[in-house]
Amino acid sequence: MKKALAIDIGGTKISWAKIDEEGKILNEVEKIKTPKSSDEIQAVLKEIMKKNLADVEVIALATAGAVNCENTRVIGSTANLAKGYKDIDFASLSNKKIFIENDANCAAWAEYKIGASKGYSNSITLTLGTGVGGGIIINDKLLKGKSGSAGEMHFAISRDKKRKCTCGSWDCFEAYASGNGLRQTGAEIYNNNNITTYDIVEWAKNADKKAILALDVWQNDIALGALALANIFDPDCIVLSGSMEKFVDVKKIEDFVNENLVTTPLKVFHAKALNYSGMIGAALLAMDSL
Amino acid sequence: MKKALAIDIGGTKISWAKIDEEGKILNEVEKIKTPKSSDEIQAVLKEIMKKNLADVEVIALATAGAVNCENTRVIGSTANLAKGYKDIDFASLSNKKIFIENDANCAAWAEYKIGASKGYSNSITLTLGTGVGGGIIINDKLLKGKSGSAGEMHFAISRDKKRKCTCGSWDCFEAYASGNGLRQTGAEIYNNNNITTYDIVEWAKNADKKAILALDVWQNDIALGALALANIFDPDCIVLSGSMEKFVDVKKIEDFVNENLVTTPLKVFHAKALNYSGMIGAALLAMDSL
Repeated sequence: MKKALAIDIGGTKISWAKIDEEGKILNEVEKIKTPKSSDEIQAVLKEIMKKNLADVEVIALATAGAVNCENTRVIGSTANLAKGYKDIDFASLSNKKIFIENDANCAAWAEYKIGASKGYSNSITLTLGTGVGGGIIINDKLLKGKSGSAGEMHFAISRDKKRKCTCGSWDCFEAYASGNGLRQTGAEIYNNNNITTYDIVEWAKNADKKAILALDVWQNDIALGALALANIFDPDCIVLSGSMEKFVDVKKIEDFVNENLVTTPLKVFHAKALNYSGMIGAALLAMDSL
Repeated sequence: MKKALAIDIGGTKISWAKIDEEGKILNEVEKIKTPKSSDEIQAVLKEIMKKNLADVEVIALATAGAVNCENTRVIGSTANLAKGYKDIDFASLSNKKIFIENDANCAAWAEYKIGASKGYSNSITLTLGTGVGGGIIINDKLLKGKSGSAGEMHFAISRDKKRKCTCGSWDCFEAYASGNGLRQTGAEIYNNNNITTYDIVEWAKNADKKAILALDVWQNDIALGALALANIFDPDCIVLSGSMEKFVDVKKIEDFVNENLVTTPLKVFHAKALNYSGMIGAALLAMDSL
């Protein structure tokens, strides 16, 4: 069975493991803090690759930022990573073939191959973390668009320029549906800008009414975006992934979408591939590309 | 060269003509008022087919409402057509093969094959009329979704439940970007619910400030939706079609989108296939399906 060395490059940490064609992680996942400079990131990646190449056919990278259609270069915004990261020539880091894909796309692919959307040809996976990532699968293929950067969840859900988004635009879905969006919604409700996403979640557990309201508003915004995607794509299902997904009532989202859509009913699922879905999806895509 | 009998079934009129493989209309387009009942519509269609079948290989229908993936039945909402229209068994109306597709999808296909988006693999055509239709082409194929109803432009651009949409939901892109949306925007600005879309357009020509403002707000809403689609799909271009497109400054939309997107720059075009794009697209799709 083929194997890949999968590496997930995030803003906080770099993780890696060997993964087989069935998406099975073959050893304990190793981790290191993401270095601050692009040169250091390259050095760390080289080292990881050198030590782990013995029995793998390909190196699979899940990365923040959009990736080109040839899966060789990062082309999109990587605000959380070092300056110059975008310009790394990944192919030069090893003699083995290196395959790169956006982490949200990888997560969507992992869900499709071994997780919640397995068996469905048309699905959308939303990665709800600090931001919101999107991976869209149409007729069993990842939607890449003309340059590779499709699936960005930056669509305005307000016309009022109420909330600035990290992308520079106003009122994107990401600005409301992300962990940071929940924080901002909570800050507005408490009229206190010093609270954290974690505070809101904890207070809600203790039945604090404002915290529960913040979580409700946040989920309604997620539902609004899910409805938009349901009408645009008519998918079989929407999968919620990422660190924030466990706070979402997927049944509530599914009911709202199915009551309001003009297309045909869909399912909303919690992710199954979870923590390492980026690495797993990257590995499966990379092995498929051989 | 193959030929199709193309029939466009709209809420107001039914139009038909023979069209060849190059999308050329071969005779003067004939028209009749759309009957009020589903039985009468069937009788009219049978008559048109009987009279025009002599030298065509296929019958191509462009229709309001979503059409299934097999292109045989209407499955979606057809609010502007007779009750029971959705249940017509089109295949039974003639011995020739009958191919059906949603009119906005047909318009998008016509633009792609012989119009403004020709040569581009990834495009979105927005049909701005009384409502807003959408046709999405990805990797040279129409996006149909799981059931055939993808491409519905019902995504909320406000969280405030300000404007009810024809779909029953609130604040959809269609409710702002359509001709009827312009009318409502004008009605709010003039504080007068009796004005028409036509009034606004006429008054703007005479430099009426409120009318110009209404057209500006309307175009900003179109731009907001175009930006959303640019980030979600990363398309090569967006084409504006339909009876209202001539009032849009496409350069202004293109500039706004390209200044604000997180994907890669695109083009915004006026449609070229224009008036009969529904029939032309249906004919070309039908002949491709043979």
